Amino acid sequence: MTDFRIESDTIGEVKIPAKALWGAQTERSRQNFPTGEKMPLEIIKALLQIKKAAATANKALKTIDGAKADLIVAAIDTLLALSDTALRKDFPLVVYQTGSGTQTNMNVNEVVAHQAAKLNPELEILPNDDVNKGQSSNDLFPTAMNITAAKAVSSLETATQHLIDELKTKQAKYWRTVKIGRTHLQDATPLTFGQEISGWVSALTHDLDYLQTLGKTLSELAIGGTAVGTGLNAAPGFADRIAAKMSEIYHLPFTADTNKFYGLAHHSGLNVVHGAIKTLAADLMKIANDVRFLASGPRAGYGELNIPANEPGSSIMPGKVNPTQAEAITMAAVRVMGNDVVVGLASSQGNFEMNVYKPVLISAFLESAELLTGTMNGFADKMIHGLSVNSERMAELVHRSLMTVTALSPHIGYHESAAIAQAALAAGTDLKTAALKSGLLTEEQYDAWVVPIKMTNIDQQKATHDGTDQGQEG
Amino acid sequence: MTDFRIESDTIGEVKIPAKALWGAQTERSRQNFPTGEKMPLEIIKALLQIKKAAATANKALKTIDGAKADLIVAAIDTLLALSDTALRKDFPLVVYQTGSGTQTNMNVNEVVAHQAAKLNPELEILPNDDVNKGQSSNDLFPTAMNITAAKAVSSLETATQHLIDELKTKQAKYWRTVKIGRTHLQDATPLTFGQEISGWVSALTHDLDYLQTLGKTLSELAIGGTAVGTGLNAAPGFADRIAAKMSEIYHLPFTADTNKFYGLAHHSGLNVVHGAIKTLAADLMKIANDVRFLASGPRAGYGELNIPANEPGSSIMPGKVNPTQAEAITMAAVRVMGNDVVVGLASSQGNFEMNVYKPVLISAFLESAELLTGTMNGFADKMIHGLSVNSERMAELVHRSLMTVTALSPHIGYHESAAIAQAALAAGTDLKTAALKSGLLTEEQYDAWVVPIKMTNIDQQKATHDGTDQGQEG
Amino acid sequence: MTDFRIESDTIGEVKIPAKALWGAQTERSRQNFPTGEKMPLEIIKALLQIKKAAATANKALKTIDGAKADLIVAAIDTLLALSDTALRKDFPLVVYQTGSGTQTNMNVNEVVAHQAAKLNPELEILPNDDVNKGQSSNDLFPTAMNITAAKAVSSLETATQHLIDELKTKQAKYWRTVKIGRTHLQDATPLTFGQEISGWVSALTHDLDYLQTLGKTLSELAIGGTAVGTGLNAAPGFADRIAAKMSEIYHLPFTADTNKFYGLAHHSGLNVVHGAIKTLAADLMKIANDVRFLASGPRAGYGELNIPANEPGSSIMPGKVNPTQAEAITMAAVRVMGNDVVVGLASSQGNFEMNVYKPVLISAFLESAELLTGTMNGFADKMIHGLSVNSERMAELVHRSLMTVTALSPHIGYHESAAIAQAALAAGTDLKTAALKSGLLTEEQYDAWVVPIKMTNIDQQKATHDGTDQGQEG
Amino acid sequence: MTDFRIESDTIGEVKIPAKALWGAQTERSRQNFPTGEKMPLEIIKALLQIKKAAATANKALKTIDGAKADLIVAAIDTLLALSDTALRKDFPLVVYQTGSGTQTNMNVNEVVAHQAAKLNPELEILPNDDVNKGQSSNDLFPTAMNITAAKAVSSLETATQHLIDELKTKQAKYWRTVKIGRTHLQDATPLTFGQEISGWVSALTHDLDYLQTLGKTLSELAIGGTAVGTGLNAAPGFADRIAAKMSEIYHLPFTADTNKFYGLAHHSGLNVVHGAIKTLAADLMKIANDVRFLASGPRAGYGELNIPANEPGSSIMPGKVNPTQAEAITMAAVRVMGNDVVVGLASSQGNFEMNVYKPVLISAFLESAELLTGTMNGFADKMIHGLSVNSERMAELVHRSLMTVTALSPHIGYHESAAIAQAALAAGTDLKTAALKSGLLTEEQYDAWVVPIKMTNIDQQKATHDGTDQGQEG
Repeated sequence: MTDFRIESDTIGEVKIPAKALWGAQTERSRQNFPTGEKMPLEIIKALLQIKKAAATANKALKTIDGAKADLIVAAIDTLLALSDTALRKDFPLVVYQTGSGTQTNMNVNEVVAHQAAKLNPELEILPNDDVNKGQSSNDLFPTAMNITAAKAVSSLETATQHLIDELKTKQAKYWRTVKIGRTHLQDATPLTFGQEISGWVSALTHDLDYLQTLGKTLSELAIGGTAVGTGLNAAPGFADRIAAKMSEIYHLPFTADTNKFYGLAHHSGLNVVHGAIKTLAADLMKIANDVRFLASGPRAGYGELNIPANEPGSSIMPGKVNPTQAEAITMAAVRVMGNDVVVGLASSQGNFEMNVYKPVLISAFLESAELLTGTMNGFADKMIHGLSVNSERMAELVHRSLMTVTALSPHIGYHESAAIAQAALAAGTDLKTAALKSGLLTEEQYDAWVVPIKMTNIDQQKATHDGTDQGQEG
Repeated sequence: MTDFRIESDTIGEVKIPAKALWGAQTERSRQNFPTGEKMPLEIIKALLQIKKAAATANKALKTIDGAKADLIVAAIDTLLALSDTALRKDFPLVVYQTGSGTQTNMNVNEVVAHQAAKLNPELEILPNDDVNKGQSSNDLFPTAMNITAAKAVSSLETATQHLIDELKTKQAKYWRTVKIGRTHLQDATPLTFGQEISGWVSALTHDLDYLQTLGKTLSELAIGGTAVGTGLNAAPGFADRIAAKMSEIYHLPFTADTNKFYGLAHHSGLNVVHGAIKTLAADLMKIANDVRFLASGPRAGYGELNIPANEPGSSIMPGKVNPTQAEAITMAAVRVMGNDVVVGLASSQGNFEMNVYKPVLISAFLESAELLTGTMNGFADKMIHGLSVNSERMAELVHRSLMTVTALSPHIGYHESAAIAQAALAAGTDLKTAALKSGLLTEEQYDAWVVPIKMTNIDQQKATHDGTDQGQEG
Repeated sequence: MTDFRIESDTIGEVKIPAKALWGAQTERSRQNFPTGEKMPLEIIKALLQIKKAAATANKALKTIDGAKADLIVAAIDTLLALSDTALRKDFPLVVYQTGSGTQTNMNVNEVVAHQAAKLNPELEILPNDDVNKGQSSNDLFPTAMNITAAKAVSSLETATQHLIDELKTKQAKYWRTVKIGRTHLQDATPLTFGQEISGWVSALTHDLDYLQTLGKTLSELAIGGTAVGTGLNAAPGFADRIAAKMSEIYHLPFTADTNKFYGLAHHSGLNVVHGAIKTLAADLMKIANDVRFLASGPRAGYGELNIPANEPGSSIMPGKVNPTQAEAITMAAVRVMGNDVVVGLASSQGNFEMNVYKPVLISAFLESAELLTGTMNGFADKMIHGLSVNSERMAELVHRSLMTVTALSPHIGYHESAAIAQAALAAGTDLKTAALKSGLLTEEQYDAWVVPIKMTNIDQQKATHDGTDQGQEG
Repeated sequence: MTDFRIESDTIGEVKIPAKALWGAQTERSRQNFPTGEKMPLEIIKALLQIKKAAATANKALKTIDGAKADLIVAAIDTLLALSDTALRKDFPLVVYQTGSGTQTNMNVNEVVAHQAAKLNPELEILPNDDVNKGQSSNDLFPTAMNITAAKAVSSLETATQHLIDELKTKQAKYWRTVKIGRTHLQDATPLTFGQEISGWVSALTHDLDYLQTLGKTLSELAIGGTAVGTGLNAAPGFADRIAAKMSEIYHLPFTADTNKFYGLAHHSGLNVVHGAIKTLAADLMKIANDVRFLASGPRAGYGELNIPANEPGSSIMPGKVNPTQAEAITMAAVRVMGNDVVVGLASSQGNFEMNVYKPVLISAFLESAELLTGTMNGFADKMIHGLSVNSERMAELVHRSLMTVTALSPHIGYHESAAIAQAALAAGTDLKTAALKSGLLTEEQYDAWVVPIKMTNIDQQKATHDGTDQGQEG
């Protein structure tokens, strides 16, 4: 009576938990690499999908026995039907293993083979010779990387569009709500809140465009390159069939028509797309900071915006409501900026026919996409959706502002305008009082020239090529 | 019959899973913040320990009813006795929540209060008024950050020392094993492998010293500052008692004697210590790269080192053994470099009395320490421990090298020496042949002057102030 | 008799070197901001070009007196005719000044006004009211940023193409030169050197495509937005005329048809394009590392490549030739990765209607483009152009390799193949000897199956969609 | 008649500008490496100082002819007497050259030799055999790196102390000036502005301590290691004499007692010290952001602080004064964070006996130190020194605040307190009105309990171990 069984590989024997579906190589990795997060399940699922397509392709190309191929497909279907929690039990390996992801590939090969043996003990399926037929970790793992990354970017695009949509609703609602502008954090000339939002929308629209434009580089799959890129031991047509199947499953235009030496040793596509994710993160940080500063208060801050009270804000200060969704998304943005260094550095460290930083690279990439997808959805639904303006506060700040003096500049010149503003500041009066006191203009002139809504140019609005509206001729 | 119960907080009612120990605020966070990794359990445990110490301190200071304090302590002891898996069930919140960690603090307050109610339904314990007594998330969470970080750094120091010890064993063994030096990747003058290892040991010894020297900055605990640093609502002596208790539990010299405004709004200590972790990561990357390049081959690489075969190396190329431990540790190093950007950027983004990037900062910090601790242990035990030299290969490369010509330079001058080396290179001969052919020296002179072991200066070795030996006068 | 003159601005009086063309605001900045590198001259030149176009546009739109506009144009033409050294004398300000670049804008305004006064003392030109007419630093400076960045990226693309061309020449020359592959730094199955180069070419071709695809985002100019994006005080048509003129001068498709609130407060375009530059840097690091490792030796390294001897390599070791061009380009790559953090972080830190990290952002961007342009040209001309292979060494390493055993795997299976490779390794024999000794195949079979050039699949080559050739079906 | 002369080195002949003091190797580098910034003059000067000390040491050790040593010393003294502009003419090389700095070392060797020939044409001094006697670029350049870095850190410490001193003056002045606290940007309980400043002071005091503690690691000089660390061709006592001389010149405790293999191949010291510089940068970013936000306005911002008007703020908006010193220092901080990635990545990329990223590493390091030194001095002198509080505004915000409700919590409990604050918020009244309306407390009680200055705990102040005062028991 034992809880272990003994298996062997090219190195020797190894004790494996009796109930585990995995084999010797997985077990070695599990013991040799106990540190860090688990390999993302998305990667496991993509590997299973590829191996299913590979078995089908091998059958069609007659490079594997048809019955074996069918059994592999059946075994994989059983695994794909599992819940995430159930699936994880068979895939215990971590990210910080061999840099090619070989051990995770072998984990998949071994589990599929064991599962096949459970389904049909009569027909032996070998992990290397059958499940891995026509493949190498070296082309397979980067194929799974690009597939999962492309899928994650697709979700990220959806979330970006969702946030854009929520912002556009507010933009329309507050299109003519005048507020003070701020540059260098100092009071500046007025604009409308709708215009301010249009800048945020424009940034996100640009970011979405970058993701969509660059995203197609992830469609190139390394499959077919096998061990060093030459395609040794892979049958003609094999890779193209797999790419076609992946396109069908993931609804993305995958292709195997790419240079395989590049595909194994470089990860330029993941690097540049993560650069676009980092760009999105930077813009989200700016937008979330704007929202939380504009909502600061309630009494001692900018106080222009009201944000939804999603939870009590403080464990000691009663009545406080904090901009928590903004805090979550900016923390996510910071993490993404760190991940960008991970992805860039990992990409730079390939040698010869291989880059052995694959697991950490894809793990960081997927984390970035997931974090921004989730926190953008939260920010859209729980922060922007319920956002409203404090319109009296906005109006009061415009009225008290000295910077509407800029409207006088074309009429009385820069230096005289500056003198009026400084006089108002020194005397603590409003601008009109100081302007009239200067004797340089009449009240009628002042009222005609200093009209905040006119200063916003909102009525000369036009749509720009990114589809955002804005209130000036441009 | 229902699976939910209804609780309320200052915002309103909320549905909570019937069996959950947590309350309204935790539930709100769970629903509002579904994205990203879970808050590390180390943080939860530290919060529990602090709250236990706080109850005890409050009892002693008579700021809480003694029976309540005892019940809080008993409830916390019950929770601390749980396994990680069991404990996690009560603490479902993620890192990407409010940036002060308030929701995790409330999670702890609520679970402790519910657990107390289970132990003694007669004596009501309130999450805010009792469990959080004298505390605010704003001082409590950074206290837990520093405690967990200090503990993690302590483990990291142990692992660094372990790797140093394994390397020193090899250094002693190969102290006089001559090999070729390489600068710019080009052949250079010889040294011994022991000397080469001594450089690695010296780097790690420096890194360990940095961690130990800087580590004490993490001993400063923000506890006692409460909401903004003034200590409003915290009793005199409260913070000192907690720091003393934490010192006892964690065997580290914690103190509450620090500026609290700093403690809530800055994380300089975590930032600078992570800089030291990054420095360690950079040195590990260099060392691991050296080992894997020196072990490259078996037939078409440098081939100077033999590394242990811990697992089959390739799913397609039989007989291959890969430097997987080096790959894991360099991936970890890359992640640490990315985390350093996270920690630095998060540290820079405080505003006024608070920094709201606390959860992502401590999460990245703990991940870095854990990754290097784990992969250094793996590298020490599964890569360095079983390492051996290929001594014939080392000797052959020294013999074939042209750079021992440097030994001639003091005797016949730089330019003549260069000419001899170039002649040998052009003719494909060894250096001695070319040297004798030059007519500038006799065979006796050559043999007396060009003695690789003498060129290493190994016999003039002395110990340096970092305790490493080296083979030169210095 | 004095070396200074006195000028005044809205703040008060200031002493200015008597001969300086600049005025009060420049002088204040010169005294208040003495630290760091000078503002790049490219920015100054772009500002001059924009202001020249602005004067012309204002004249056409009748928003400035025609004679004044002509005088401004004449003054700017005089300045643009200066050498860089002469121009620098009038533009002494540094990058680390106000974050909007206002002081550099005023430097230009003041110098143009003074130069105009020298050309025609009768017609007064005012720095703010005339030279800056219709502009604000807030829209002008980001316009100059995008123009200079777009121009720098254009040069970078040319240099990338040049390196691709040099590599393709070598790819063609060594298309059928068989060499050992290396994965995990360990010996792997063979490929040709042409194939290996094709991977490098593919990476650079991808990177070039990213630059070209993304580059057009830099064509969007903020001009016309004035102080906060509303276009207050800018005449209709003004911005479009300037964009058209810039397109003519720089041969790039600039447009003013963009959201101005975005244009002042976000730098998403520069951020994402720098991400593509970082991606290029990462690939260059990989390629340069490959070249220098493959050229390592001459006697104790991989020794597959011969690199040009551009300079003596060592001040003490005669005869040594170092891969210095590879060192310069990898140092540049490291700097670019640091600059990417600068650009990303700077982009994230805008507030409200403005981002005040503009000078450091554009300075880092331009440095990255210049460094890669220059070092790629050096690498192409002084490293790749003169590169040749050590063909005997390549052949010898293939012959000695055990990894050609992979060719046996389809015939005798994975495990038997592994056993043969291990037997050869243990006995120190070549693979053929071990294979025949195994009794599993005949000499005829071995010679038919193990043919390195066949293992490269070179004869099934086809062109991939990125235009690179490769030796497999795909 | 020609403008060039011909020189030759081990590679061949080269044309050199006739008047240049440099020789063949410098000229080759000048032609081969035209890209990027010049090698910092600080490095050149340090190399000259080391070579002067080396000549003296060689003379004492009788490893060089005494007259030659004297001539080398005289030549170097002539060069050290030059202005920076004059010195630069002889040292035209850039950072992006060979990664060991060899070409700059040869530049120095050649210029010294030529200068010696000008002083005494009768006594030939050879660049390699004499000026470089006992040295290699490989030990010399890192020695110069550590010396210049240590000196730069020393200046940085002085500037940090200066900023601390200016802040402490304000801290004392505003020690009892009550203002509203802000956490999550939301109104919180009050503190004094002196307390707020004490948090900034504490952060900078910590940072200064980190620099001082870590700085000594830069005292370890690689000199004596020569080409690979073994000290081949360096006389006993040579390195110690040079370290002693450098200590005397730079007033820093340099030592040659360090592991040389470490000294050539690792730059852990520079890496960890730059981590401390990055930590300082992060804190400066936080402090400068606080100052500029608190000074935001004048009418539509926080408006608590008045900052000096150092220059006109806008080219279009008259009367505006911008926080330009804060913008410069935060831009510098961002650059330092990018440089930290450069230093960390460069440190990680050594191979075997050498790290060939030395020039870019030291260039980034020196830039960081210089930028923070300069901008901290500017921030101290032109921002903090002239800073004053807007005391009516501070008092008004405290009065209007709802968060002083926290003072009621110990008396009437958390939930009742929250209800009062929410009632005041909803009704737009002040807190006292709402509190009395609740019927839970009397006016006397309110006035006794809600006393802002008491809420700051300022009268329980004590000094913390970092020497900062703070207003609570702790």
